[in-house]
Amino acid sequence: MCTAAAYALPSADGSFEKVTIERRELGPDDVAIDIKYAGICHSDIHTARNEWGSTKYPCVPGHEIAGIVTATGSAVRKYQVGDRVGVGCLVNSCGKCSPCLAGEEQYCTNGATWTYNSPVPETTQPGGYTLGGYATQIVVDEKFVVAIPTGIGLDVAAPLLCAGVTLYSPLKHWNAGPGKKVAIIGMGGLGHVGVKIAAALGAEVTVLSQSLRKRDDGLRMGATHYYATSDKQTFRQLRGQFDLIINTVSADLPIDDYLRLLALDGTLVILGLPEHPMRVTGFNLAGFRRSLAGSMIGGLAQTQEMLDFCAAHGIGAEIEVISADDIDSAYDRVVASDVQYRFVIDTATV
Amino acid sequence: MCTAAAYALPSADGSFEKVTIERRELGPDDVAIDIKYAGICHSDIHTARNEWGSTKYPCVPGHEIAGIVTATGSAVRKYQVGDRVGVGCLVNSCGKCSPCLAGEEQYCTNGATWTYNSPVPETTQPGGYTLGGYATQIVVDEKFVVAIPTGIGLDVAAPLLCAGVTLYSPLKHWNAGPGKKVAIIGMGGLGHVGVKIAAALGAEVTVLSQSLRKRDDGLRMGATHYYATSDKQTFRQLRGQFDLIINTVSADLPIDDYLRLLALDGTLVILGLPEHPMRVTGFNLAGFRRSLAGSMIGGLAQTQEMLDFCAAHGIGAEIEVISADDIDSAYDRVVASDVQYRFVIDTATV
Repeated sequence: MCTAAAYALPSADGSFEKVTIERRELGPDDVAIDIKYAGICHSDIHTARNEWGSTKYPCVPGHEIAGIVTATGSAVRKYQVGDRVGVGCLVNSCGKCSPCLAGEEQYCTNGATWTYNSPVPETTQPGGYTLGGYATQIVVDEKFVVAIPTGIGLDVAAPLLCAGVTLYSPLKHWNAGPGKKVAIIGMGGLGHVGVKIAAALGAEVTVLSQSLRKRDDGLRMGATHYYATSDKQTFRQLRGQFDLIINTVSADLPIDDYLRLLALDGTLVILGLPEHPMRVTGFNLAGFRRSLAGSMIGGLAQTQEMLDFCAAHGIGAEIEVISADDIDSAYDRVVASDVQYRFVIDTATV
Repeated sequence: MCTAAAYALPSADGSFEKVTIERRELGPDDVAIDIKYAGICHSDIHTARNEWGSTKYPCVPGHEIAGIVTATGSAVRKYQVGDRVGVGCLVNSCGKCSPCLAGEEQYCTNGATWTYNSPVPETTQPGGYTLGGYATQIVVDEKFVVAIPTGIGLDVAAPLLCAGVTLYSPLKHWNAGPGKKVAIIGMGGLGHVGVKIAAALGAEVTVLSQSLRKRDDGLRMGATHYYATSDKQTFRQLRGQFDLIINTVSADLPIDDYLRLLALDGTLVILGLPEHPMRVTGFNLAGFRRSLAGSMIGGLAQTQEMLDFCAAHGIGAEIEVISADDIDSAYDRVVASDVQYRFVIDTATV
């Protein structure tokens, strides 16, 4: 057993406070990581504030973790002390179901173990549920650790562990690439990474954002077109245009309006989970053989592939580094969409 | 100009009556067809009774047409007098847009011409809108005529022109075949053909029907499993099972319940168009990378491929042949789901 400093929320309506947590003894397959940076994902906020229910307190969020290996278990083969590594949303899965065998551990039918707020034995995490990356150390099975290539800073790499693979996975799955027209709905923490990755994959990228406020950024990051969805004309003008639309926004959008922007055989992929059920008119699907689909992060192999791809293309998240004592105000700013484009906690301040 | 006998509905709430209609003069690319059988599709009823709006009267429905070539235009190459042929839902399309060039004429972006109730020049159909197959003759451009192989009777082939290709197209598009688990929702005019085709493609077929009333038929037609959707246990038992679910039912179904029956990367395809928007919960898509999609009939090349496939596998629709003066009561029976499994009009009685 070892201890780590962490920032935890004691209750849904509390404020973050510094605590000391325990991490498990290093097992043979485990890697101990000195966390350097932890990104703030909107899911952290939903969980910390118990907006999805079932949050256990004290809650230590954080699943965009970048750091340095400080110790390795006796059976660890992939990593050694000093390696630059990352941990994303997953720290375990059954390894036996068909999604796990296909390398899609995020869809484990027996229930993957999430990096925070997931039930585990006391021997895995004292307290009986996982504690995330707003901390100075973490111990993770090497199968759930990825290597961060030297081409990317640990700070701008951290958000890639969730936001990066959340976009990379559907872009690859639905064949974004040369000759394909891809639209990204939302120019936030997820969306801005999506623009960079889709452009690097060779697709023609359009941003569909509420306003034109971040237009210059979008074009700089690789978009060819940028439209405001507050302008009704956008939906008339772009009808039937896109092979793939990725929706990074969790708000309740008029899905039918977006489906009509798809070309024959086009797919609209939702990543954010709207609060209410979506309303979908059958003809908007059948009339052009369109699909409405969903996607959730990516498997471990694909997370590694994404990091290698991002390093090769010079892609990192655009970040604002904060101190641990600024987490509460950062949360408020994320909720207000007032961040360009991802907060990252410097865990030296934890 | 030539005349044909036909059965037409004079108004939305009228009864079918025998009328004489005109067909255009045979153009160089045209085929004149002596119609032998015309299937009754639920779309005929929606149109005839103006349930979709915009119906022009008198209305002659019918887009499941099987007959014999009686004359060919000077430039016709594919057909000759005496050939067994069929006409489905389409009689023209622009031929230049990208769906048309891809052989997906049903998705023509300039608007395909449907076999009935579609606006056309007077020179194409006197009256200015198309008149369908409840008639003794029709004149159609050879590009929109398919050959009915000798292995299938014209009577059981007629429903394949719409119902057959409506099922064949999505089954092929979403790769139904050996090793794939396919469910067909609904055991009616569309569903029963879907069971036969999916089984012939080598998939493991499950029928999801309101009751077990048609279970023996379903198993005889090729299904391996048959479940009643009125039994809540069905939805618990089949969770995460299917690679592909084809919904042939137009009623407002609880789409979320069916999405949860899909395996990782599974697709639920809707063919019927429910009256109200569907309600879809995001997590049921994202949690297993599932898709909700739509599909509409098939292109001409695929319609021919489907007929050849059905002939090779001994597949025809299961039909009840009626006289033209029974159309009104047949409509009422279709609405009451009281047909096993498709009505076909013997046009010798028109």
